[in-house]
Amino acid sequence: MPDTVNDTTTAPALGHLYGVGIGPGDPELMTIRAHRVIQACPVIAHFAARRRQGNAWSIIEDSVTAQQTVLRLEYPVTTEAIEPADYERQIAEFYDRSADDIAAQLDHGHDVAVVCEGDPFFYGSYMYIHQRLARRYPTTVIPGVTSVSAATAAAGVPLVSMNETLTVLPGVMQPAQLKEALANVDAAVVMKVGRHLADIRDAADAVGLAAQAVYVERASCATERVVPLADTAEIEAPYFSLVLIPGTGLDARSRPVR
Amino acid sequence: MPDTVNDTTTAPALGHLYGVGIGPGDPELMTIRAHRVIQACPVIAHFAARRRQGNAWSIIEDSVTAQQTVLRLEYPVTTEAIEPADYERQIAEFYDRSADDIAAQLDHGHDVAVVCEGDPFFYGSYMYIHQRLARRYPTTVIPGVTSVSAATAAAGVPLVSMNETLTVLPGVMQPAQLKEALANVDAAVVMKVGRHLADIRDAADAVGLAAQAVYVERASCATERVVPLADTAEIEAPYFSLVLIPGTGLDARSRPVR
Repeated sequence: MPDTVNDTTTAPALGHLYGVGIGPGDPELMTIRAHRVIQACPVIAHFAARRRQGNAWSIIEDSVTAQQTVLRLEYPVTTEAIEPADYERQIAEFYDRSADDIAAQLDHGHDVAVVCEGDPFFYGSYMYIHQRLARRYPTTVIPGVTSVSAATAAAGVPLVSMNETLTVLPGVMQPAQLKEALANVDAAVVMKVGRHLADIRDAADAVGLAAQAVYVERASCATERVVPLADTAEIEAPYFSLVLIPGTGLDARSRPVR
Repeated sequence: MPDTVNDTTTAPALGHLYGVGIGPGDPELMTIRAHRVIQACPVIAHFAARRRQGNAWSIIEDSVTAQQTVLRLEYPVTTEAIEPADYERQIAEFYDRSADDIAAQLDHGHDVAVVCEGDPFFYGSYMYIHQRLARRYPTTVIPGVTSVSAATAAAGVPLVSMNETLTVLPGVMQPAQLKEALANVDAAVVMKVGRHLADIRDAADAVGLAAQAVYVERASCATERVVPLADTAEIEAPYFSLVLIPGTGLDARSRPVR
């Protein structure tokens, strides 16, 4: 089975970089391969917000032993009021430093698993490490279950079927843009809801999709919550929440004969 | 952890229905939970084309023992020349019969795992069973790794980052529609390529996205293939292939400082 994204730079002494998708939150939704690689790597790297344990760490902590080296990569800034340009620069420097720390391990011949919630290449933080190191080290990316799949499973909502189109949008879009984007979708997911919940509800309402839409918070985690979008007026949505607008193709086609 | 999509109809004697996402092809890309549930259920149901072993079966066969009952649900029609309306009716009747077979097991108190490649609610065949049975039996859906995630991992291509939008399209779209749909995307995936490869290449070319696009066939399987879209003129694409058009946001923002 092809295992290596980029093995042209393989040198015998270098460690192997793994970008490991660890799924949406429930440790049992890790893949067998992710679990195996996490147990086999001498070095585990994960991102975390300041003063937080980090979602990624809470997913894998039972898989890690005291014999492994853990690189905790702590974001220098989070939601503090800060100039966008300054934020961009601080974050880019942080990813540079993080990549340097990981590279130091790889240069010593240690394999490093950089774990990442969900799937590494679907809005994953691992991308910033990949961008900096995949050309220099043998690298393998292990796909994971996304929060979108976990949310549809939790809600019991088939998302897309047959020849439907799926549109995945960030909640941060301007209300007018969001309304325009939702106007012609078959099925949609609005990610990273946070403080945009009311705008998303308004947009779904305006285009006649509010009735079928479902709000899902922290899918597959102990604190998971599933609520019809229409009933979310009182909810203060966290960043890790999304709104599902399922397609209707399943009802229109191949419906039960009886 | 919430485990039950619909437990309002729970009667003690009824079996539990599991819709199990088993990932894109590599058995190691099953989740730990999917593997556990497949091993624990006395009855395993899977779809298969006529005269084929079935992709789903090839993923799970090493996890199934002779003590388990296997329901092979064989599609009555595949790519034969057949009237669309006739096809729709035959397929709907087939799903009805399949649901009846599964319901008979559940009525006897046997738990049934209906396995499904990828993720059950992302173009998954399990949906048609869910639609027919989830209201009548306690039901749990286990999300899986999609072929999209497997393809981006295989290609080493970050798909969407930051505030980018992702559009997932079926290859069967008319060329003009496809071109229009691709005209304004941040990132896109065209699924189920098959005989539409040339049209997809033309559309990507027309909107200036051909250079970054990647064709991926049977991601994570032994026969996996990754080819730049521009170099696919000689390729006869199978149904299980897709085209990735990665977003460029990662390059534009938070790029390495050095």
